[in-house]
Amino acid sequence: MKAVQVVGYGEPPRLTDVPEPKITSPYDVVVKLGGAGVCRTDLHILEGQWARKSGVTLPYTIGHENAGWVHAVGSAVTNVAEGDPVILHPLVTCGLCRACRAGDDVHCEQSLFPGIDTAGGYAEYVKTSARSVVTLDPALRPADVAALADAGLTAYHAAAKAARTLRPGHRCVVIGAGGLGHIGIQVLKALTAAELIVVDRNEDAVGLGREVGADHGVVADGSQVEHVLDLTGGHGAEVVVDFVGEGGATADGVRMLRRAGDYHVVGYGENLDVPTIDIIASEINFIGNLVGSYTDLCELMVLAAQGHVRLHTATYPLDRFQDALDDLDTGRVRGRAVLVP
Amino acid sequence: MKAVQVVGYGEPPRLTDVPEPKITSPYDVVVKLGGAGVCRTDLHILEGQWARKSGVTLPYTIGHENAGWVHAVGSAVTNVAEGDPVILHPLVTCGLCRACRAGDDVHCEQSLFPGIDTAGGYAEYVKTSARSVVTLDPALRPADVAALADAGLTAYHAAAKAARTLRPGHRCVVIGAGGLGHIGIQVLKALTAAELIVVDRNEDAVGLGREVGADHGVVADGSQVEHVLDLTGGHGAEVVVDFVGEGGATADGVRMLRRAGDYHVVGYGENLDVPTIDIIASEINFIGNLVGSYTDLCELMVLAAQGHVRLHTATYPLDRFQDALDDLDTGRVRGRAVLVP
Amino acid sequence: MKAVQVVGYGEPPRLTDVPEPKITSPYDVVVKLGGAGVCRTDLHILEGQWARKSGVTLPYTIGHENAGWVHAVGSAVTNVAEGDPVILHPLVTCGLCRACRAGDDVHCEQSLFPGIDTAGGYAEYVKTSARSVVTLDPALRPADVAALADAGLTAYHAAAKAARTLRPGHRCVVIGAGGLGHIGIQVLKALTAAELIVVDRNEDAVGLGREVGADHGVVADGSQVEHVLDLTGGHGAEVVVDFVGEGGATADGVRMLRRAGDYHVVGYGENLDVPTIDIIASEINFIGNLVGSYTDLCELMVLAAQGHVRLHTATYPLDRFQDALDDLDTGRVRGRAVLVP
Amino acid sequence: MKAVQVVGYGEPPRLTDVPEPKITSPYDVVVKLGGAGVCRTDLHILEGQWARKSGVTLPYTIGHENAGWVHAVGSAVTNVAEGDPVILHPLVTCGLCRACRAGDDVHCEQSLFPGIDTAGGYAEYVKTSARSVVTLDPALRPADVAALADAGLTAYHAAAKAARTLRPGHRCVVIGAGGLGHIGIQVLKALTAAELIVVDRNEDAVGLGREVGADHGVVADGSQVEHVLDLTGGHGAEVVVDFVGEGGATADGVRMLRRAGDYHVVGYGENLDVPTIDIIASEINFIGNLVGSYTDLCELMVLAAQGHVRLHTATYPLDRFQDALDDLDTGRVRGRAVLVP
Repeated sequence: MKAVQVVGYGEPPRLTDVPEPKITSPYDVVVKLGGAGVCRTDLHILEGQWARKSGVTLPYTIGHENAGWVHAVGSAVTNVAEGDPVILHPLVTCGLCRACRAGDDVHCEQSLFPGIDTAGGYAEYVKTSARSVVTLDPALRPADVAALADAGLTAYHAAAKAARTLRPGHRCVVIGAGGLGHIGIQVLKALTAAELIVVDRNEDAVGLGREVGADHGVVADGSQVEHVLDLTGGHGAEVVVDFVGEGGATADGVRMLRRAGDYHVVGYGENLDVPTIDIIASEINFIGNLVGSYTDLCELMVLAAQGHVRLHTATYPLDRFQDALDDLDTGRVRGRAVLVP
Repeated sequence: MKAVQVVGYGEPPRLTDVPEPKITSPYDVVVKLGGAGVCRTDLHILEGQWARKSGVTLPYTIGHENAGWVHAVGSAVTNVAEGDPVILHPLVTCGLCRACRAGDDVHCEQSLFPGIDTAGGYAEYVKTSARSVVTLDPALRPADVAALADAGLTAYHAAAKAARTLRPGHRCVVIGAGGLGHIGIQVLKALTAAELIVVDRNEDAVGLGREVGADHGVVADGSQVEHVLDLTGGHGAEVVVDFVGEGGATADGVRMLRRAGDYHVVGYGENLDVPTIDIIASEINFIGNLVGSYTDLCELMVLAAQGHVRLHTATYPLDRFQDALDDLDTGRVRGRAVLVP
Repeated sequence: MKAVQVVGYGEPPRLTDVPEPKITSPYDVVVKLGGAGVCRTDLHILEGQWARKSGVTLPYTIGHENAGWVHAVGSAVTNVAEGDPVILHPLVTCGLCRACRAGDDVHCEQSLFPGIDTAGGYAEYVKTSARSVVTLDPALRPADVAALADAGLTAYHAAAKAARTLRPGHRCVVIGAGGLGHIGIQVLKALTAAELIVVDRNEDAVGLGREVGADHGVVADGSQVEHVLDLTGGHGAEVVVDFVGEGGATADGVRMLRRAGDYHVVGYGENLDVPTIDIIASEINFIGNLVGSYTDLCELMVLAAQGHVRLHTATYPLDRFQDALDDLDTGRVRGRAVLVP
Repeated sequence: MKAVQVVGYGEPPRLTDVPEPKITSPYDVVVKLGGAGVCRTDLHILEGQWARKSGVTLPYTIGHENAGWVHAVGSAVTNVAEGDPVILHPLVTCGLCRACRAGDDVHCEQSLFPGIDTAGGYAEYVKTSARSVVTLDPALRPADVAALADAGLTAYHAAAKAARTLRPGHRCVVIGAGGLGHIGIQVLKALTAAELIVVDRNEDAVGLGREVGADHGVVADGSQVEHVLDLTGGHGAEVVVDFVGEGGATADGVRMLRRAGDYHVVGYGENLDVPTIDIIASEINFIGNLVGSYTDLCELMVLAAQGHVRLHTATYPLDRFQDALDDLDTGRVRGRAVLVP
């Protein structure tokens, strides 16, 4: 089959012929790709930033946001059958460790990550596990939702966790209305009645945030902290969800937070650097957020099927992978790029 | 009546005669002191560190850890009567703001703090409110529990919050077995079956921590992180409660924390300075902790009456206040110093 | 002032002149009525059903769903001022007991209930407490929201509690789309993305339920259990909120519940009668629901101001109280009747 | 191998030779029995009470409380190895359904129950799954803990759930201090500082309840409700855990419950029959409890290894199974009977 492989760091990837993945274990599932999201992480992999962390051996196939149709299943698979439309949870987890048994499979002690440390979905077929496939509602096409499999799932996870403490009358600041942020806003809108304030440096992003549900938009032009304090009666917001995490976002974000508030860290890059006296005097919390669990992905697909979460996508045939990567790198993609084999 | 007052910053306090506090509002309660804890914060007040923050006018009476017997009550007070033994919540709160109405009175929007910003308990009588008095079990003497009113209440609050997520088989690291830490250990022991690991630079403090309930003691001699990792199968602890917050405690503490773990910030001094990538990759949380609520104080007094929480105290007559302060300053107090009028 | 008073059980109430309420305690608030909801409980009071339970002495003024403008305040009142538009929490609570201190004021150990056991709001003025007044958003008129003060607040409380466990993909059955039920549906819609199924014997009520947000409507014509099982893949719903509680509703409702589901009891009349073997084999829960807390009322007023919760009302001048009661009794009121002085 | 089989309902079981179980699926685990609890359910099975519900084909081997050592493992098993001492969760679950993925495996949509609907542990070997084996601490012997696998696990589940809302100063009534109740008391003691009140008709059982940790004992001689109200200041207890569920226990138990309290249903037999008006007026909850999850069993084994939970057992060699069953039937077993092959 055709697959796009990393052949060397700092080099362009290459479309080659590789053997189709085969069922070798009872819980294996082989999926015929319907769409594979093109993600900034893919650019970082090609630059070599993940080389040491993933420990992967070159060449290998990238692509970690995958959806399609079940092509073949192992002998023990009971939850999907050939032909079923599915989206793939990004991790292949063991199902036996303490984390998996508690439903917290993201912290599985021996997970694989197709597209990062083993063969991914820039290809005609990809191998995953019965534990990683979520059946799609007939209303959803694989190519339309593939890009929700990782970035969208992370946004869902953070927003749904934040929503648990948000009551009517509370305010929630969303920092960053890009790929993750605009999903997060839609999720918050579906799950809470809290007032949403979107903050972004880019005026268009603020506009997008308002379009998909934010009640207020604040351009981060230097006055953003004061602006948010004005919008919150001087108290700050009960919750801040920070999809940026760099360029000074955290220092600003903390100043936007109300006493006893929760600061959700999702984006990353800079250090969180806060005096402990401020943490205790205001009794604020910092909540880490990784990608969502299998159950989170099921819930996100429900919101997608209900029309609560919509993603703008630009599709490219698989052999135009380089155009997709270039467009992403140069900022020419509106929404998310998706490769369609 | 006699009272110990701050007359100038950088000067010793002075025992003088001042008018007894009078009932002026319907919810006022005047308490005859049975004991007033002598706290490190009192030393800081005398040095002037709180001058700007509290905005208090000199001279005024310090003492913010108070217990005694009800002496007089306002017309609307129904929860206590003259002669009742009581401990005083450190704050006098409004009862009407959003925080107060949710039972989260510590975040009251217009609270007073006797001993910090108004007359406190280094005196024969102190004025507080019906909302701040907790009736003591007959088994408890005011002088024995007074020093739990602020420091002990903070330790209770953090430990009880931490206990909510601790399950059998989990490990909890307690950093610091001093005034707060040794209360925190006793509370954790009473409320959970988690394995407790106490970490302190001081070998005696580690010994005290073990005596009051910690399952393991670790001297912070440079090997403490490795030692904790050894004790937790290399995973780190599900919860760290940090009663130190300075001298590098937070950097060490974060390395002792398991994936998806909670880091409770209680002690303060240094900055919490953590890469956001580490926060999200391990999906860890940082939880701020201020003093406990009125309800927390009620619960702590139950634990004290049951014998689950014990405090070592050294009592001084009120007019020996200077000896108490000097002993505290020079490290000659074992446990907590308490002034008894 | 004019007031409508119960003068004898089984007799019509009478409009008379009574003295205006006066401020006698520091937390008293006297409110000039803008609207008083006419509730089925008022009919029951007139019939004498509450005589023994309330222990009230006749004559007295009824009306327990009140909103208006602050007319006078006691010396300690800081949260409202003369002229402020307010809605009144139905209870006047002590603020000092364990329940009040935990934010759970509905379980106050010594509350009053104006309109039930002391003078209520079928009058020009009513006396309440600073602890019972919620300031209204300028967008809300007292007469429009008065009827939310008790019935609406109960519906909010149950729906908001139910919402805490409802995730995307879950189903929630609402039994009864009358006065409480149609508020409950609006609240569930605002707070969750769960699929809502309304069940009622009355086809019009089902229609109203669908209009205000239910995804599916089921007429209770004998096939309702099967119908709900069909809509839930044979599993039953994760949550049932029962606003009826009589006429066999609970027996049906339990059969609509999924394993590990929550059954919220709000309406009442019959006995809940379930084999314990069924409770443990399905591991289901029954959750009682009383009126909401002060904080719940604040949140409900936010939803009302946002337009998430709307009530249909028919207003009557105060002196047409008998028409209002008669119309309610004979089923001629669509929505809720409100007296406007 | 030798196995004790049901050969006909109403007949005594028979010790016969049957083939050893073999590994046929990748997640299979065959365990050499170290102990099999003899449970009242086994008597009911022999009487035929479970015939229709389980649908099992005779003859088959009973025994659903099993512990021993791993004898053989399937190709995909990574969590245990030959020779490991293990206790068996009573269910063999699928790992793929919604409930399993949420960590709530007890509600698995296609579970097996060895000893009930397939071959159990009155034998030399039993087959289970990798998902059902919990490795034992070296301090624990299989025969000593086997009887915790089902009854003990149910008690743990209910007590641990109840413990989540119990705060210092709260009271918890435990109805029934038999096989489950005396485990429940030990668990509550380990996980909370609440005051425990044990209620039982049998004076010896009350004595045992006191020995293993209850603070107060109440003999159910007709005055039990008044006695509990006396012990709780007239308010009733915040939590009731009912391990009896028959003979009028629930009617009594509800009267022992405080406003806003939780009633945990664990024992069964009679109907729960409560006026809905009482449920809403007191705002009480009824919480169903089935057997615990895999994670619960891991936690219970931690408490057992720590010495917090101890079980009194009487061991019988496998071929004396009839004596064990007879002793159980005639009330001659103190604690739990365990068959040891």
